[in-house]
Amino acid sequence: MRWLLPPGIEDLLPPQAQALEGARRRLLDLFAAWGYRLVMPPLVEYADALLTGTGADLAQQTFQVTDPLSGRLLAIRADITPQVARIDARDSDPAPARLCYLGSVLTAQEAAPGACRNPMQVGAELYGHGGPESDVEVLRLMLATLRAAGHDSVHVDLGHVGIFRGLSRAAGLDTDAEHTLFELLQRKARADIADFVSGLGLAAAMRDWFVHLPQCFGPIDRLPALRAMLPGVPEPVTAALEELETISHALLRFEPQLPLFVDLAELRGYHYHTGIVFAAYGAGYGQAMAWGGRYDGVGGVFGRARPATGFSADLKRLLGAPAPQALPVLAPWSSDPTLTALVEGLRADGRTVVYELPGSDTGPVGARIVPCDGGWALQDAG
Amino acid sequence: MRWLLPPGIEDLLPPQAQALEGARRRLLDLFAAWGYRLVMPPLVEYADALLTGTGADLAQQTFQVTDPLSGRLLAIRADITPQVARIDARDSDPAPARLCYLGSVLTAQEAAPGACRNPMQVGAELYGHGGPESDVEVLRLMLATLRAAGHDSVHVDLGHVGIFRGLSRAAGLDTDAEHTLFELLQRKARADIADFVSGLGLAAAMRDWFVHLPQCFGPIDRLPALRAMLPGVPEPVTAALEELETISHALLRFEPQLPLFVDLAELRGYHYHTGIVFAAYGAGYGQAMAWGGRYDGVGGVFGRARPATGFSADLKRLLGAPAPQALPVLAPWSSDPTLTALVEGLRADGRTVVYELPGSDTGPVGARIVPCDGGWALQDAG
Repeated sequence: MRWLLPPGIEDLLPPQAQALEGARRRLLDLFAAWGYRLVMPPLVEYADALLTGTGADLAQQTFQVTDPLSGRLLAIRADITPQVARIDARDSDPAPARLCYLGSVLTAQEAAPGACRNPMQVGAELYGHGGPESDVEVLRLMLATLRAAGHDSVHVDLGHVGIFRGLSRAAGLDTDAEHTLFELLQRKARADIADFVSGLGLAAAMRDWFVHLPQCFGPIDRLPALRAMLPGVPEPVTAALEELETISHALLRFEPQLPLFVDLAELRGYHYHTGIVFAAYGAGYGQAMAWGGRYDGVGGVFGRARPATGFSADLKRLLGAPAPQALPVLAPWSSDPTLTALVEGLRADGRTVVYELPGSDTGPVGARIVPCDGGWALQDAG
Repeated sequence: MRWLLPPGIEDLLPPQAQALEGARRRLLDLFAAWGYRLVMPPLVEYADALLTGTGADLAQQTFQVTDPLSGRLLAIRADITPQVARIDARDSDPAPARLCYLGSVLTAQEAAPGACRNPMQVGAELYGHGGPESDVEVLRLMLATLRAAGHDSVHVDLGHVGIFRGLSRAAGLDTDAEHTLFELLQRKARADIADFVSGLGLAAAMRDWFVHLPQCFGPIDRLPALRAMLPGVPEPVTAALEELETISHALLRFEPQLPLFVDLAELRGYHYHTGIVFAAYGAGYGQAMAWGGRYDGVGGVFGRARPATGFSADLKRLLGAPAPQALPVLAPWSSDPTLTALVEGLRADGRTVVYELPGSDTGPVGARIVPCDGGWALQDAG
């Protein structure tokens, strides 16, 4: 059937498309009010520009095609984040840059069987500031974004890639060993971790840290207890733990009701993140609703390695059921200027007015414009 | 340089992106007020679905890539029109369907050297009604769209593919001869046309019609004189001329001030159009600003051959200089609830408020929030 779409590729039809447009406006207005300026990068770029930073993990997931004009390989974006890093690097203003985006992306593979391959990615990035204040700002904006999309009750998981990174450096792990441990940690496979690290010839304390790490998660008020499970960790790990604590506490001063959880073994985006990492979850959502973190230096490949922190989400995943739409007003087919003025006035007031097309059915209507005393009157369809 | 973009592929950066977003909202609100419902088809589809109808002319211009999931060839859309035809064909409601769209498209080749390869296509389509009223509605909506994008003074060129099609069928031209004449007519190469048709063994009247056709253009009030240059044309051509006249006159009753021109040799989109064709031009725009026409049966390849008429434009081409943006309000970094409430109130009123990030420059600001009497006050940056 020619009207079938490829697997994972979807149309958005009228009620849903209108709902998405409404959410788009609420989110972009929110970003503007927070000082985040909209950028619209293109759907394709040179593959070597797009598959950097956050995009480097996505090479397998990205459609690539040769450009007949330049003769070079192009990639269809699977993630807008690397494009925003490139845009920040085009600028030389030393002040922090707040940038936001909203647009379609495309993935060659499904993240899970039946998953959508054409999400609508939305996000915000703050470049040029490395302190906890910018992380807190981005976390707050993520929560405001979810609220603007109708999700008031979410919880946030917070981690810091500096914890595992600091431990694996202190342990002198080679790339293979680090990768294996990373995989085991993601599965929280504690017994396998114990087996694996016992073969690495590490000091007893170091072994214990790796073995305990997958259990170091819980509500934020347990953070001191979780830290106590990792006694005597090396300085970079302590610094990461302190940053996590500073950011959590600052966030809670703005959002005292937020259910905030920490996971010291959180490794989302480990390959490009450099500081905190986070994700927001809501009731009934198995997957994260929004996610992000710090990725200092992400623009370095474009010639400008600034601190950077941000979040993103799939707007299609955030949409609820579309609101019922008002039925249109039906106008008779006539070029009478009085009727035209009435129609234009109703439209300017936000009503939908459709003209009757001779010989055709009309769908359901809420009201009709009818001749009345030599002029025109609006009559409920009743 | 890694931050370079492929030829013809552009970013939209903050002031322009914001201007485009503003125009997007005005246009989509206009379409909604006219009863046109928004659809958002995906960036890619199966190539054999996308390269049909209006898309059939675009095969050379369309990026294609193999889908690892389906194993089939995908095309990145160079035109949204075929997608909307597919969407109309998914429905079985016999009432006319009014649909609109706005989104990025991509072309593999440049239309002209240096031309943009990533336009933002916007348009509206009316399916299911074959009478002149729907053509008039679409023409009026095109004019309203251009006005909403800030273009008040445009002129419209109107043609009808049934004129040349009717003549070439009556002359019994084969595909090659029709194609040659089509090319000559597009260049208005009158002497070459005379040479070419003299070798075809046509009746004298038929030869004259082809030779005169490239000069049959002018303001709408010359239409009777232009028709007189084609005396005794076959019935299908007469029918096309009468349809052109009916639509022109009806449009002028709604738009009495419109500079309207007719061109009986207009062949824009000849391969898929079936009735009137039109384009709108503005002062200082060499290319058309918006264009469209009737393409009955365009959904036939998707199993539903309904009458159809519509228009489209490149929103990027319609944008003027961005409006100057108000400078933001600068808030000190503090989680004091009174300050947070003040910031949220200003943002809800449409002001942009950015928090100062410790240790960083700020860009230019219009006002600052400062401590005052144990609370906070807004102070002009002055």
